[in-house]
Amino acid sequence: MPSKQNLCYEGKAKILYTTDDPTVLIQYFKDDATAFNAQKKGTIVNKGVLNNQISSRIFELLAAAHIPTHYLGHLSEREMLVKRVEIIPVEFVFRNRVAGSLAKRLGLEEGTPLARPVFELYYKDDALGDPFINDDHVLVFGWASAAELTRMRELGEAVNTYLRRFFEARGIVLVDGKLEFGRDATGTVILADEITPDGLRLWDAKTHEKLDKDRFRRDLGHIEEAYHRIFNLVCGDSTL
Amino acid sequence: MPSKQNLCYEGKAKILYTTDDPTVLIQYFKDDATAFNAQKKGTIVNKGVLNNQISSRIFELLAAAHIPTHYLGHLSEREMLVKRVEIIPVEFVFRNRVAGSLAKRLGLEEGTPLARPVFELYYKDDALGDPFINDDHVLVFGWASAAELTRMRELGEAVNTYLRRFFEARGIVLVDGKLEFGRDATGTVILADEITPDGLRLWDAKTHEKLDKDRFRRDLGHIEEAYHRIFNLVCGDSTL
Repeated sequence: MPSKQNLCYEGKAKILYTTDDPTVLIQYFKDDATAFNAQKKGTIVNKGVLNNQISSRIFELLAAAHIPTHYLGHLSEREMLVKRVEIIPVEFVFRNRVAGSLAKRLGLEEGTPLARPVFELYYKDDALGDPFINDDHVLVFGWASAAELTRMRELGEAVNTYLRRFFEARGIVLVDGKLEFGRDATGTVILADEITPDGLRLWDAKTHEKLDKDRFRRDLGHIEEAYHRIFNLVCGDSTL
Repeated sequence: MPSKQNLCYEGKAKILYTTDDPTVLIQYFKDDATAFNAQKKGTIVNKGVLNNQISSRIFELLAAAHIPTHYLGHLSEREMLVKRVEIIPVEFVFRNRVAGSLAKRLGLEEGTPLARPVFELYYKDDALGDPFINDDHVLVFGWASAAELTRMRELGEAVNTYLRRFFEARGIVLVDGKLEFGRDATGTVILADEITPDGLRLWDAKTHEKLDKDRFRRDLGHIEEAYHRIFNLVCGDSTL
């Protein structure tokens, strides 16, 4: 088991530590929650513990579905082992229904189903507020190659298709989600970061009750209960 | 010559009239200038006369370069005859250098050359402030088909390449520009709207003096002189 060495990156919800294996990092999940580009800050009790387990389970399921991820295995309550990757500074968003910034930008009602999934790219830059971009910006500024962009879209579509069905079978609508990708030591594009209710919009299929970070963003209360419900749904069921 | 009948559309800088030929409209150029989604309004003396001639000349040049446009011919000082088209509600922006909203969105300095042209799409909707969109939004909301989008990009690239060289040969940098396309009676995608300093950013190649609507947007003065200089450059030279 690789042993923890130095902090190498601290983000809003996670910390990465190096280990004695240069290809392996420890990903630690914090309880900190931020929204609106970190203008709103708070804590969701036990979020780190739940998100570590939710994300671990989802990465295992995706790997079984032949989607390569940085997940290497469980380490502790709040820690997983991950492959060291160079993060591609382009956030990949998939949308099955209108919500959030898309609703605002196009004046559409939240919850409107989309005839087919919509994909969007955002430049990962806190100082700029993660601006919405297009393929041309990625290519001309060299944030990813055309081949990498194509692969990100392939993998992003596959993740969305898998997760949409997974949650649908459990009475949950996957409204949208954000993915991050990285290049491993061989330059291969793999799924990185985390897959949790921090970055997915998940609604109860019957009541449309929100079961994700929007409860924190919009001060809806019962945040911990929502994360617990998703944890139970994702981790309480052992069939692959 | 088709005779003028009813007003069928009034925009910020132009009016379209029907004629006794259902396939032909009269496009009338106003002196009105607006900026920042019509929050700023004013008049540029004689702009309509200059823009009618600048746009006519550029449409003629593009037609000679095998780029199909809605332009049918000169009618009067402020009027041209155009093919009736159904406007595609997607504005096509080409950029050769960083300026305007791209500079703001990505925190880049105005004037930075781009390694290759960048293309962007905006949803033509005044109430929403013409939001930046991507191909997926166009397709899923049915604003244009995939084939139309491909054709718009082909034509947009060709227009940019042609005009960049045209202005470069006359000591002017074509920084960026906005194009609109429409479907003619046969469903063919052709260039529509206008091509004038209202929708192009044009800088003196040596001094980087702005010779376009940014003089109005940014209160730089000498607006009429700038439009006159572009008029002289575009229309004073009769070589195709």
